[in-house]
Amino acid sequence: MPELAHNPDSAPRHAVVLLSGGLDSTTVLAIAQDQGYLCHTLAFDYGQRHRHELAACTRIAQQMGAGSHRVFTIDIGQFGGSALTSSSIEVPKDRDEAHMDDIPVTYVPARNLVFLSIALAFAETLNATDLFIGVNAIDYSGYPDCRPEFIESFMLTANLATKFGVEGGKIKVHTPLIDLTKAQIIQRGSALGVDYSMTHSCYDPDETGAACGRCDSCVLRRSGFEAAGVPDPTRYTASHA
Amino acid sequence: MPELAHNPDSAPRHAVVLLSGGLDSTTVLAIAQDQGYLCHTLAFDYGQRHRHELAACTRIAQQMGAGSHRVFTIDIGQFGGSALTSSSIEVPKDRDEAHMDDIPVTYVPARNLVFLSIALAFAETLNATDLFIGVNAIDYSGYPDCRPEFIESFMLTANLATKFGVEGGKIKVHTPLIDLTKAQIIQRGSALGVDYSMTHSCYDPDETGAACGRCDSCVLRRSGFEAAGVPDPTRYTASHA
Repeated sequence: MPELAHNPDSAPRHAVVLLSGGLDSTTVLAIAQDQGYLCHTLAFDYGQRHRHELAACTRIAQQMGAGSHRVFTIDIGQFGGSALTSSSIEVPKDRDEAHMDDIPVTYVPARNLVFLSIALAFAETLNATDLFIGVNAIDYSGYPDCRPEFIESFMLTANLATKFGVEGGKIKVHTPLIDLTKAQIIQRGSALGVDYSMTHSCYDPDETGAACGRCDSCVLRRSGFEAAGVPDPTRYTASHA
Repeated sequence: MPELAHNPDSAPRHAVVLLSGGLDSTTVLAIAQDQGYLCHTLAFDYGQRHRHELAACTRIAQQMGAGSHRVFTIDIGQFGGSALTSSSIEVPKDRDEAHMDDIPVTYVPARNLVFLSIALAFAETLNATDLFIGVNAIDYSGYPDCRPEFIESFMLTANLATKFGVEGGKIKVHTPLIDLTKAQIIQRGSALGVDYSMTHSCYDPDETGAACGRCDSCVLRRSGFEAAGVPDPTRYTASHA
């Protein structure tokens, strides 16, 4: 859907794209660019256990030609409560598929709400009304703030929270992956030329950034590549491979 | 409404109270405490032009016996766009009452949305479902995210964003000042014994913390004390007094 390609003379519309360094948000960036948006990528340094995600974000923004890239520091981990930000809670490995719908300990309280709110503030200063986020209701690891009803509700709230909203409710949160499987996401991104070797998904990599292959995120990613019939470029730890 | 005083044996319910150091949020703290909540005050270091607000927050939390006090650092000002965080935009003085409904340049993009989202994350780690915020729809300086429809919408979004929400939609955002005039707020707080000399409202104080007396916030505060018939304990700059 290259919405804006029909009018090549018009100035590009600006969008804010939330970038985590994983394959979902990288695919979202490719989709937003394909739709003609000039994309400002926004990554969050939120007290993650490891820094490989942020390094991946910088690589991706640079290599894919984002209009700008910004890392917003917010120490959400100071509140504790998640295995993704607290080293005292173990990242679960080899979880049963049957329990994937439970809210896992890797859940960061209200993370997407906080991130979208900040992205909205950023968008407002850019005079941009479009936000892109790679949430996914299929392979979503059980996080409540990845569900479409959350996004819909956020959009209503965002339009009430801001100048743009007051001026006519124009803010749109795009979720192009919302009903795609991991395999479909990978197929979509591959068709758009995304180089997934740049991306990082593992919750618990070794110090070189190699993926553990066993956390929820690795399991979803690995089976996604298999189902998509696309070679998996992920570098796994020696002990796992 | 001391909701919980009827059951003195029960453990106190915990609440998160957003504290800005001004008279509104200080009154909210007094009201929440009067309702029997053990209050955890949350202030934001968000790149304000001056530090007097944060010093006021610490004084207030200490003097009023908050259960805990926390300053959350979030550099929302890095996006620019507001006179409250950018020293290159002048704080408006002596604004016409007729223009008080316009959105002023002191508006910080999506501020209450960002702050409430973070407060929600904090509440979730405390197992608290109650948030208190001193927004006000009467003397509200024209900020879109102070309107009751924004708060209502945020509550729906919050319940969809979190574990608590998934478990039954229990999150409540209390806005005890929403339909009070500044004078009524001051009367309410005074009846509860609030010492307003601790509070700071001015957008543009001098280096000693004395209030300018002319910004929107000072104008509302000053006329509030007058209308309430309560002596104004604010220390104004010599040039103004």
